[in-house]
Amino acid sequence: MPAMTLQDLREQVCDANRALEPSGLVRLTWGNVSGIDRASGLWAIKPSGVDYLALKPADIVVLDLEGRVVEGQFRPSSDTKTHLVLYREFPEIGGITHTHSLHATMFAQAGREIPCFGTTHADHFHGTVPLVRALTPEEVTQDYEHFTGVAIVERLRELKLNPLEMPAVLQLHHAPFTFGINAMDSLKNSIALEMCAHMALGSATLNPAIGAIPHHILEKHHLRKHGPDAYYGQK
Amino acid sequence: MPAMTLQDLREQVCDANRALEPSGLVRLTWGNVSGIDRASGLWAIKPSGVDYLALKPADIVVLDLEGRVVEGQFRPSSDTKTHLVLYREFPEIGGITHTHSLHATMFAQAGREIPCFGTTHADHFHGTVPLVRALTPEEVTQDYEHFTGVAIVERLRELKLNPLEMPAVLQLHHAPFTFGINAMDSLKNSIALEMCAHMALGSATLNPAIGAIPHHILEKHHLRKHGPDAYYGQK
Amino acid sequence: MPAMTLQDLREQVCDANRALEPSGLVRLTWGNVSGIDRASGLWAIKPSGVDYLALKPADIVVLDLEGRVVEGQFRPSSDTKTHLVLYREFPEIGGITHTHSLHATMFAQAGREIPCFGTTHADHFHGTVPLVRALTPEEVTQDYEHFTGVAIVERLRELKLNPLEMPAVLQLHHAPFTFGINAMDSLKNSIALEMCAHMALGSATLNPAIGAIPHHILEKHHLRKHGPDAYYGQK
Amino acid sequence: MPAMTLQDLREQVCDANRALEPSGLVRLTWGNVSGIDRASGLWAIKPSGVDYLALKPADIVVLDLEGRVVEGQFRPSSDTKTHLVLYREFPEIGGITHTHSLHATMFAQAGREIPCFGTTHADHFHGTVPLVRALTPEEVTQDYEHFTGVAIVERLRELKLNPLEMPAVLQLHHAPFTFGINAMDSLKNSIALEMCAHMALGSATLNPAIGAIPHHILEKHHLRKHGPDAYYGQK
Repeated sequence: MPAMTLQDLREQVCDANRALEPSGLVRLTWGNVSGIDRASGLWAIKPSGVDYLALKPADIVVLDLEGRVVEGQFRPSSDTKTHLVLYREFPEIGGITHTHSLHATMFAQAGREIPCFGTTHADHFHGTVPLVRALTPEEVTQDYEHFTGVAIVERLRELKLNPLEMPAVLQLHHAPFTFGINAMDSLKNSIALEMCAHMALGSATLNPAIGAIPHHILEKHHLRKHGPDAYYGQK
Repeated sequence: MPAMTLQDLREQVCDANRALEPSGLVRLTWGNVSGIDRASGLWAIKPSGVDYLALKPADIVVLDLEGRVVEGQFRPSSDTKTHLVLYREFPEIGGITHTHSLHATMFAQAGREIPCFGTTHADHFHGTVPLVRALTPEEVTQDYEHFTGVAIVERLRELKLNPLEMPAVLQLHHAPFTFGINAMDSLKNSIALEMCAHMALGSATLNPAIGAIPHHILEKHHLRKHGPDAYYGQK
Repeated sequence: MPAMTLQDLREQVCDANRALEPSGLVRLTWGNVSGIDRASGLWAIKPSGVDYLALKPADIVVLDLEGRVVEGQFRPSSDTKTHLVLYREFPEIGGITHTHSLHATMFAQAGREIPCFGTTHADHFHGTVPLVRALTPEEVTQDYEHFTGVAIVERLRELKLNPLEMPAVLQLHHAPFTFGINAMDSLKNSIALEMCAHMALGSATLNPAIGAIPHHILEKHHLRKHGPDAYYGQK
Repeated sequence: MPAMTLQDLREQVCDANRALEPSGLVRLTWGNVSGIDRASGLWAIKPSGVDYLALKPADIVVLDLEGRVVEGQFRPSSDTKTHLVLYREFPEIGGITHTHSLHATMFAQAGREIPCFGTTHADHFHGTVPLVRALTPEEVTQDYEHFTGVAIVERLRELKLNPLEMPAVLQLHHAPFTFGINAMDSLKNSIALEMCAHMALGSATLNPAIGAIPHHILEKHHLRKHGPDAYYGQK
């Protein structure tokens, strides 16, 4: 894949951030999307605390994989170091979305992972969406956002999960992070996660003894959308 | 009834699919509507994975009752074989809608049918909205979408239900399917089902001992909208 | 008060019906508003099964207090006889709204009245919103819509409630009816009822032992908006 | 800080009131925002019972800190005396918003404070959002709105809370009040409170044994947005 121009990258990341508010996933400035151009190793993220609808491609901050700002006049998102760790450790991902979307955050706050209760979930997440531990007082003092990324990586590795097969995690007491092949794809996974969390809350209320769906249904739904034999969409 | 032109059929199906997103029943591309012209035996469905708002009548895929594509440059919905079985087995239906609408899907995931808790439900669905079993590993391997249709037909026949009197089912672990006299009518039944599911969740929370409404109220409400003596609407 | 022109009456009733859908209280055609001109004894209601947004003043059906259509080319709402009984029995009301709004209907289906849990409720409804019984098989057979009105009147009289002090009831298994000094005012009470029902569901979940608010708070809030010493709004 | 012109003040307060309805926090006329110019000691509030979208800067009522109307042809909000007490007693605040937003009001009605269940809450509210007692019959009779303000001040002082560190309270049986450095900032805190209340309801449903977040996470999130070392936003 040839390197994108910086302008393309900024536009993609700007578009995905501008789509946050209409998606219903964020209020105020509670969310950010980033994207990376793996060919050049440059990545881009929303500036901190800026209103989504006012955002222009020129406002997007471009960084390298050492976390140095390469272009942009604004301070990058306060969550920048979390994104940086994830891009460094997961070379397969091309985009990251962080929101405090309502129902996914309910699960994160409650300390409950989201089991796969149906095919909507299976279509996007290959099994239970995992919970990532909270940081220790030492980690918080030393570098909160960096260690948030470290804890996410640690948890997915511990569970032997590929971040494109399980493109979502919930951090305890905090909120979700989702991944994708690019910025907009990571946002779509945030939309899917929010819907699955909402459905899971209702299904667990209706049937407290509910269990995860049978393995053969999970595999079928996941693989008809993902993997070499996928047959969903226009190829 | 004279055969519709293919253009009419594509427009009707396009309109109903474009109405999915404003109806609040779908996010991303999680839903599809089809419609059939019984005079010609041709039917039409949304292409797979295409954004609703970009959809034009020319994008709609036309098939025959053998499942062969007759017109259209796109791959039809991944759920096409389910619709095909339903059109073949239920000659009275003229439209089918499949969504993962939030509250109806909560019931499907929880493995709970939706009893008739009120007149809103009775106006559209003549009794309990039934649950359709999940497919076996063998059925999933052999032909997932085909057997989804087979299981729906099997369940309605077992309960001796006419698909226009009970124009909705919930597939366990999955989501709802609704039927109608044409594409738009099946979508209206999806809207009604989603509202009834939402109301049922709340009513069951407020009154865990709630039972179905009395038979004479069910009959009255259903028959004032349906059947030979209906007196709702402009005749 | 001089008689309104029929055109004024039709416009008021048309406006209120067109406001139903944007209010979020109705889906499809599940609701209707009527209004009366007490000086002439003529009243007007939505035609049955017509889409709200297509509604024009000329489509509104005008009737007299014997239930005879005076003007209008369409069949009036299927709930017309219910409205008629209410206008005949409650000379103080000037408008009626019937919807199947989500949370109010949850309470109606669950057979639970809505106690006054807070000042939002007290501002609009002077105490517990009562439940009206379901009709008997005989009443349903003989004249369903007429006896719905009769049961509402019977219940408010039994509780010695003035329909402008308690401008809402919930019919068991069915849905709410609200009253007002005119068509739009009855719609505003439907909006207030839906919000109060939603709040009540949440409050009762958070505190199952919740009771009605203290009497002195109820009186204060109700009387600052209603009655001779009201001081809310621009006089 | 130089005194604002009255026109500036009216515009700021008008803008914040007009933002109430699009924010989803109010229905009908259930909410009001005010703002103060500390240099001149003049403050401004919404007129009572006026529709938000019709509001123009010239309609905003300007008062002094004795509660006398200085400019404006309308009667000020019925909650004016509550705002007055708060501005007199809390010199650090520059804006106040009062709504009956859905989920915050559920907690107020249920008599439950909102513990800090997550970082969304910590970002805006430094600990548990407190409950303010209901007024006594004597206070209601004597001066309802005045004593509402008195009870809020009493409660924050009792808990030794700074109203900019804890810019929200819930009055028992009633609804929330939020504070900010100006009118729009107080509205943003109402939006944050409503979201946190909604999340808290869901989290407590998912995990009835849920406790407040660890102290070190609360401090970190609050201080990265507030206080001398804040590093969120564009400085």
